[in-house]
Amino acid sequence: MVNEKIYIYGIHTCLSQIENNPENINKIYIKNSSLNKNLQNILDIAKQRDIIVSQCEKTSMDALILSNKHQGVVMEISKRSKGHKFSLDYYIQTQSSPLILIIDSIQDPRNLGSCIRTANAAGVTLIIKRKSNSCSITPLVSKTSSGGMQNLDIYETNEITKIVQKLRANNILVIGTDDSSDKDIFSVTPSHNGAAIVVGSEGEGIRKSLQNECDLVCKIPLYGTVDCLNVSVAAGIALYHLRGKLEKSRIVK
Amino acid sequence: MVNEKIYIYGIHTCLSQIENNPENINKIYIKNSSLNKNLQNILDIAKQRDIIVSQCEKTSMDALILSNKHQGVVMEISKRSKGHKFSLDYYIQTQSSPLILIIDSIQDPRNLGSCIRTANAAGVTLIIKRKSNSCSITPLVSKTSSGGMQNLDIYETNEITKIVQKLRANNILVIGTDDSSDKDIFSVTPSHNGAAIVVGSEGEGIRKSLQNECDLVCKIPLYGTVDCLNVSVAAGIALYHLRGKLEKSRIVK
Repeated sequence: MVNEKIYIYGIHTCLSQIENNPENINKIYIKNSSLNKNLQNILDIAKQRDIIVSQCEKTSMDALILSNKHQGVVMEISKRSKGHKFSLDYYIQTQSSPLILIIDSIQDPRNLGSCIRTANAAGVTLIIKRKSNSCSITPLVSKTSSGGMQNLDIYETNEITKIVQKLRANNILVIGTDDSSDKDIFSVTPSHNGAAIVVGSEGEGIRKSLQNECDLVCKIPLYGTVDCLNVSVAAGIALYHLRGKLEKSRIVK
Repeated sequence: MVNEKIYIYGIHTCLSQIENNPENINKIYIKNSSLNKNLQNILDIAKQRDIIVSQCEKTSMDALILSNKHQGVVMEISKRSKGHKFSLDYYIQTQSSPLILIIDSIQDPRNLGSCIRTANAAGVTLIIKRKSNSCSITPLVSKTSSGGMQNLDIYETNEITKIVQKLRANNILVIGTDDSSDKDIFSVTPSHNGAAIVVGSEGEGIRKSLQNECDLVCKIPLYGTVDCLNVSVAAGIALYHLRGKLEKSRIVK
């Protein structure tokens, strides 16, 4: 069995990790030059908790994570236990080519549950959903998801715009959906680190201000006479299309 | 505006047409050699109803429909009026590269309605559904279909096996769905006159005896932890995949 090593990095992410889930840290790499207050804080907590610390050259840390954006701290961690506190930074750093579903607003619990089930089937590992003006995770949602809430994170927030900006900054393609778009989802072949689909409320769709933050806004073409697809069917069609394209470009492993 | 000519042919189909929907017949072509009882019957009804009849060479009729399977009679017809009696022969002969959904059995009216809505969106023009042991077309089904029952035929029958055989004989690819299949639906690129997807009941799937009649049995791959997709989501993913492939091969016009 291969022992997969997962690295997270950056002061904010690593501080959150050591404060909330120190038991998952196998080893900490900290730069061997002068430490700022936060790095010193991480080092102090690590000593209290008997976590192995290796102080090393910045360049060694660059090589470890294939990036120089570690701000002087990298952590080797094991897979998360249940009940961890969600961190988007942690998610982005630990997921290889993620497929993400963003739900701007859904009112109907059956639709929300069905979206979760469909997303799980398509290999989505993170659902970001708007907190206000939206159905929350009720027992009916859980039931309709048919076990789909296992094995993925559901992150409720009202800062979806900020999250979309962060995903894009991390080379994750963010695609909004809108029936009136000229662009067909099937024409999209992402060459990114991952992809996210944004779906909106029944009838209303996704907010214009959020559409403006996306890389692309696409429609699923309608060949018949109905006005639109059910939101979970639309999500399924879009997510499976992207999953296939990401696989073909060998981004999804 | 182009006046599209639609031809139907064969004794059974044409007799049914002239008996049930004579008002849609623009012109009848009948062979100019000796007529059997059925052809004579068609000719007699045509005269009673003042429908234009052209008696011509068999080879001219071959050229008209690009086939010699007309049994001595071809009808040029206009598009059907509402309330016509469904005929599979008529359907096959008048549809260019049809996309068909076959529902072996669905119990839940919401699922059935959602399947109809999704099929309509994907450009399906015929839904064949099992009559017995299956939810019928109730007001709730109609409501959940969100107008999807417009513009397509829904044909209820208990002879699905025979219909599958007839579709295949007419070069329409029939694909059953089953989660335990080794073959991925996304690997299918039909080079046929059209395609049909068979979906089954929630939980049970499609009957083994029906699977055996299909050209292929495929799964929609599951990348997460759920056991299966909702039937209308699965239908949507499969139908949109086939629609795209048929379009690329320029079969769908």
